[in-house]
Amino acid sequence: MIEESKGVTIMRRADELARHTEAPGLLTRTYLTDAHAGAAGLLAEWMRDAGMNVRRDAAGNVIGRYEGLTPDAPALLTGSHFDTVRDAGKYDGNLGILLPITCIAAWRRQGRRFPFAIEVIGFAEEEGVRFKATLLGSRAIAGTFDTSVLDKRDDDGRTMRDVMADAGFDANALRAAAFKPENALAFIEVHIEQGPVLLDAGLPVGVVTAISGASRFLVAAIGLAGHAGTVPMTLRRDAAMAAAEIGLFIEKRCSSISGLVGTVGQFGVPNGAANVVPGKAVFTIDIRAESDGVREAAVRDVLDEMKNIAARRNVTFDINQTHEAKSVPCADWLQDQLDSTIAGSGLPVRRLPSGAGHDAMAMAALTDVAMLFVRCGNGGISHHPDETMTAEDAETAASIFSRFVENFAPRR
Amino acid sequence: MIEESKGVTIMRRADELARHTEAPGLLTRTYLTDAHAGAAGLLAEWMRDAGMNVRRDAAGNVIGRYEGLTPDAPALLTGSHFDTVRDAGKYDGNLGILLPITCIAAWRRQGRRFPFAIEVIGFAEEEGVRFKATLLGSRAIAGTFDTSVLDKRDDDGRTMRDVMADAGFDANALRAAAFKPENALAFIEVHIEQGPVLLDAGLPVGVVTAISGASRFLVAAIGLAGHAGTVPMTLRRDAAMAAAEIGLFIEKRCSSISGLVGTVGQFGVPNGAANVVPGKAVFTIDIRAESDGVREAAVRDVLDEMKNIAARRNVTFDINQTHEAKSVPCADWLQDQLDSTIAGSGLPVRRLPSGAGHDAMAMAALTDVAMLFVRCGNGGISHHPDETMTAEDAETAASIFSRFVENFAPRR
Repeated sequence: MIEESKGVTIMRRADELARHTEAPGLLTRTYLTDAHAGAAGLLAEWMRDAGMNVRRDAAGNVIGRYEGLTPDAPALLTGSHFDTVRDAGKYDGNLGILLPITCIAAWRRQGRRFPFAIEVIGFAEEEGVRFKATLLGSRAIAGTFDTSVLDKRDDDGRTMRDVMADAGFDANALRAAAFKPENALAFIEVHIEQGPVLLDAGLPVGVVTAISGASRFLVAAIGLAGHAGTVPMTLRRDAAMAAAEIGLFIEKRCSSISGLVGTVGQFGVPNGAANVVPGKAVFTIDIRAESDGVREAAVRDVLDEMKNIAARRNVTFDINQTHEAKSVPCADWLQDQLDSTIAGSGLPVRRLPSGAGHDAMAMAALTDVAMLFVRCGNGGISHHPDETMTAEDAETAASIFSRFVENFAPRR
Repeated sequence: MIEESKGVTIMRRADELARHTEAPGLLTRTYLTDAHAGAAGLLAEWMRDAGMNVRRDAAGNVIGRYEGLTPDAPALLTGSHFDTVRDAGKYDGNLGILLPITCIAAWRRQGRRFPFAIEVIGFAEEEGVRFKATLLGSRAIAGTFDTSVLDKRDDDGRTMRDVMADAGFDANALRAAAFKPENALAFIEVHIEQGPVLLDAGLPVGVVTAISGASRFLVAAIGLAGHAGTVPMTLRRDAAMAAAEIGLFIEKRCSSISGLVGTVGQFGVPNGAANVVPGKAVFTIDIRAESDGVREAAVRDVLDEMKNIAARRNVTFDINQTHEAKSVPCADWLQDQLDSTIAGSGLPVRRLPSGAGHDAMAMAALTDVAMLFVRCGNGGISHHPDETMTAEDAETAASIFSRFVENFAPRR
């Protein structure tokens, strides 16, 4: 019998796992729904098949442990989330669970064990769709779960606490889900890039330097509405053009430094009409960088430029900060071991920041973290059914991950 | 008895006329409603009080004739519309009917007549609110009424033809409403400026050079949506920033020439999210100028620049022209007579284009036209209950209008 390659297994299982969905014809799997329970069961089955002992914690995380050469050895942690956004891609999160399971299955067939255990964690919740709170699974394990979110309600008006109880999970036991730092050697998360950098560079994998910090603002530009025909250009206080100007400033300012990005994702003129000079425009600003200093300098410059534009155009900007998160660096020693593994495979080493948030962000509160990004097809699209990757890249990533683990040297 | 000044009479009557509204507490008076009939009756009453013979035509226009020294003399035409937008100001349109009535009442008291008749027309419909077709009254009189609009329906699903019949107006008689050109010496329309130019210049009145031509477009910019954190600036195809760039180009291009205006009045990112690079942006372009050549050159430059932006940013612009109207010039000989009158009153002469459409646009098909603008308060706001003007300016405008008529020399 010809053994299926790891890459093919991973792709096949991603398809199988995607059948557990709340919405026929597309993939939506939010926290503690029936689809979520089905996916958890399937992951547990594959973990057991790979020789792991499987448990579920109070948050609903699915945790498989592949013992080391000695019992109770500290563990190298890996994994990602198996909840999804609405109308999601199949690989976001899921890849980071399926890939280690497949590698462990191979070691088990070879009878191979290491001086450390490996724990594969299927995080029950990362996307924040159902309760508008993110990273629930990894926060439970990192011991940073904010119990105030238990009172949040889903669209049906049910609290998270009640939903957990109905699904058989005890919110009061969440504290016990936290791992002990001394039992964790590191956390490495394999994840589809969800962007076009590796695709553009022609590389199957990349090493994440940091999960970028982010500053987000909701801004209203207030000018004066007027008749598009009767108000001369020199007498206008056009709110939309003030917003356009700061948008282009953000774009230019953030283009000057690699690893810095700035986006005006929402932009609208409320009740705008073709023949009315906009008196109001509402827009968002999202600025991210792997370096907090770089991000903070960009934010300062943007806020300064808004003052200039406001003065010059006789408009006001009503600025509300809606989000602020510091950068979470990946550990140098883990990046170095990933670099060596990739270089040892004959591939160019590419480091890149992660502009999106991941479970590794929360896990950094528990232990040193690293991330291996896998090339995303289709222009880098994600959070969308068009999200795609190849079996070849899955195979390459599985090979890199396997060698990384086989050569893993815990920090002294 | 101290006689009320013309300015005070005009302002008082504007208040009285505004009581004829469909919507209590605000002014809304659309074509052939009860409020519209009430206003028509009040205008007819004031016309008769001023010594005019009053008739209503098939379009519902209210026409008062103040005979000249000889019966059946050709007439100097004046007037404006008495329909309004929803939640309108009191002076838009109405001023141009009330002011000549007040001047004629004074001549009648003085027993003064001219070698020509004066006809004051209260146009029944200009704004286009009820049937989404504008200038109905002045088109009927100019002989350019498009009978296909009779099949248009209001929000209650009733055709204009039926609404007219119920109100006692015969759509089949519309053709007979058209004036004979040989009976019309000219048309002069007094109108509130609906903009800030005279206010900014500190002048009570201005002479309109032309009713600007206009080009209007609805544009969709199509780029590629992406994750605001993961797509580097260099790999983006941001539709909103492409739209912002052309918006600022329009603003700059149209600021270079007096009498040219360009507006992006609608601007939106459909389903935009703070963390998503916009894949689509929808916006309008409105470009107007008193000179068609100036407008057409600006439109060409804007379309050319869109090609440049599309190529540079790898986006496409889906451009649909929604409106195109040529400039309607006011007659030089009428402008000259208005200039002389204003200068003779010791006031600076200010000529300015009208960026908004007016009944004079349609009347230009019948006879030479002129417009006298009156200063608009409150920053020039119009189509809004905050629209305002002063009794002093009404008095000044009435004085200028009176002298213009008293010294009117028909074209040879």
